[in-house]
Amino acid sequence: MDRTPVTVVGLGAMGRALARAFAAAGHPTTVWNRTPGKASALVEEVGAVEAADVAAAVAASPLVVACLTTYEATTAALAPVDRLPDLVTLNSGTPAGARRMARWAAERGARFLDGAVKNVPEAVGAPGTQLYYSGDEAVFAEHRDTLRVLGGDTSLLGAEVDLAKLYEAAVGATLLPALLGFLEGAALVTRRGLPAASLVPHSVKWLEMIASILPVVAGEVDDADYTRLQASVGLFHEGVVHDGELAEEGGLDLSWHEPMHDLLRRAVAGGRQDQSISALVELLRAPVQPVRGDG
Amino acid sequence: MDRTPVTVVGLGAMGRALARAFAAAGHPTTVWNRTPGKASALVEEVGAVEAADVAAAVAASPLVVACLTTYEATTAALAPVDRLPDLVTLNSGTPAGARRMARWAAERGARFLDGAVKNVPEAVGAPGTQLYYSGDEAVFAEHRDTLRVLGGDTSLLGAEVDLAKLYEAAVGATLLPALLGFLEGAALVTRRGLPAASLVPHSVKWLEMIASILPVVAGEVDDADYTRLQASVGLFHEGVVHDGELAEEGGLDLSWHEPMHDLLRRAVAGGRQDQSISALVELLRAPVQPVRGDG
Ligand SMILES: NC(=O)c1ccc[n+]([C@@H]2O[C@H](COP(=O)([O-])OP(=O)(O)OC[C@H]3O[C@@H](n4cnc5c(N)ncnc54)[C@H](OP(=O)(O)O)[C@@H]3O)[C@@H](O)[C@H]2O)c1
Ligand SMILES: NC(=O)c1ccc[n+]([C@@H]2O[C@H](COP(=O)([O-])OP(=O)(O)OC[C@H]3O[C@@H](n4cnc5c(N)ncnc54)[C@H](OP(=O)(O)O)[C@@H]3O)[C@@H](O)[C@H]2O)c1
Repeated sequence: MDRTPVTVVGLGAMGRALARAFAAAGHPTTVWNRTPGKASALVEEVGAVEAADVAAAVAASPLVVACLTTYEATTAALAPVDRLPDLVTLNSGTPAGARRMARWAAERGARFLDGAVKNVPEAVGAPGTQLYYSGDEAVFAEHRDTLRVLGGDTSLLGAEVDLAKLYEAAVGATLLPALLGFLEGAALVTRRGLPAASLVPHSVKWLEMIASILPVVAGEVDDADYTRLQASVGLFHEGVVHDGELAEEGGLDLSWHEPMHDLLRRAVAGGRQDQSISALVELLRAPVQPVRGDG
Repeated sequence: MDRTPVTVVGLGAMGRALARAFAAAGHPTTVWNRTPGKASALVEEVGAVEAADVAAAVAASPLVVACLTTYEATTAALAPVDRLPDLVTLNSGTPAGARRMARWAAERGARFLDGAVKNVPEAVGAPGTQLYYSGDEAVFAEHRDTLRVLGGDTSLLGAEVDLAKLYEAAVGATLLPALLGFLEGAALVTRRGLPAASLVPHSVKWLEMIASILPVVAGEVDDADYTRLQASVGLFHEGVVHDGELAEEGGLDLSWHEPMHDLLRRAVAGGRQDQSISALVELLRAPVQPVRGDG
């Protein structure tokens, strides 16, 4: 079977991984990067072709995959090109950014799909690696096999172009907090002279436990009924008092906990002590801004 | 085979689950709770025996499992008893609390094991449910089969009595932050009229991804070499600018992010921009307190 030629624009850590996966899977792969020199390993090792400029790169394939830092960087890099073929962006950004990008692409005649790589560059191409897309359903249907080269768990969230970024933001909101939690634990055990590696099997189990309760948490949020999960606001609130002792034990600076404690205190003060911890969703919803009068 | 008789002291949500698992597995199970009335379902449904007072409860079995709110509550509840048999505590607390509890138990002649149930009460008794213990190795060895009734993934971390609480604190540090991250995501998609439940499969995948990178993160921490994970402090720091747009999109109060952003800013200011995000562990380690002079 002939593989669709693909152009990858942007050869940072992620762009290089994408280009490598396409080329390794037999797609004629053209690459371009603003700063020269990033294509050499791809050219030598997997036979990618480096384009002389972005216009030549885009002209080489019916499908352009752009992976730059931001949408702004993407439009800046693609600015010299008047007409674009099918365009897929895989950078991070906001739902509003994706909507702006879609308008920009439409003005240049491109059918447009936005997406998100939900893993590290090293995982690109693996069967379990997750990517999801939103936008032009025909683009997804026509290039489904090509896109699946980047990860076996590839799906379309819907035709609204900002859904990928909406879900990415929603799902991704756990990453930094969860990693900080793990690093805090690592600081605690290493202070005791135990390796952080000894935490890993327990933390993996723990993340599985957290994953296992998410359906209950989501159900509580969807029904605004915080009575199902047997882990109450009050129980978490009681845990707050341990922080001082733990900080001392571990030689830790736990000040990043403060706003979480504040949420717990406000929830208890609001009478949510016996509600499930899912009730904190209500406090994360911003109060409606008062309309300014002209007095 | 004759099953070891067990006494469960404390019939909160977790204590009831423990007692139910022991009784259901055929262990003669005696229960006691400060406030009466919590034993009735256990007595009626699984044949537990309710003791008239805590002394009678403790006298009924060679193994006492206490699951109260805190160590302080545990010593308060057991105060009327002079001599204790083998004692296992499964409450939350700090490593220092476990050490204090161990001294208290030793004064009353008890062989002592501290432990942690790393799951919700509903999961007690399941093959995948994790509990870990630390303390008297003979107690663990002799009661291993009995303790395994509470969860198939039961292990001894070591003979130092505070290790269970140390690991619990270290591992548990991800729970509230990860749940808040999920709830923030839930607030974002529900604002758009999409169910929080639609996030769950993606978030489960995401937690698996986080779990898959923990060995790398732990290795970076153990070697103080923050060059392996291709997710830099700088990349996370750039994400910070999205918060305002996201807060508006989702009608969210994201102020709990502030100290995390501050860590990122301080890491960038400290020249860690290109280091892996694992480098934040250095900032979680409290600065050594200056020794106060007497000037
Ligand atoms: N790395 C990860 O773990 C990961 C995971 C999932 C998603 N992502 C997302 O993937 C995207 C790329 O990440 P990365 O890790 O590949 O970043 P990176 O290594 O920092 O690379 C950034 C790329 O963007 C280009 N670029 C930036 N501004 C530009 C401009 N104005 N004009 C032209 N090119 C410009 C850079 O070109 P120069 O070489 O010329 O500077 C480089 O190719 C980001 O949105 C990131 O959030 C990354
Ligand atoms: N629920 C969970 O999801 C979960 C998960 C893992 C670990 N844990 C841990 O398990 C322990 C118990 O949790 P839980 O959910 O069962 O809590 P709970 O439902 O609030 O029950 C607390 C228990 O402690 C007793 N108690 C408190 N102070 C006492 C005192 N001074 N004297 C005598 N009894 C006293 C209470 O007796 P009264 O009925 O007389 O008040 C009750 O039996 C906690 O340390 C918790 O962190 C819980």
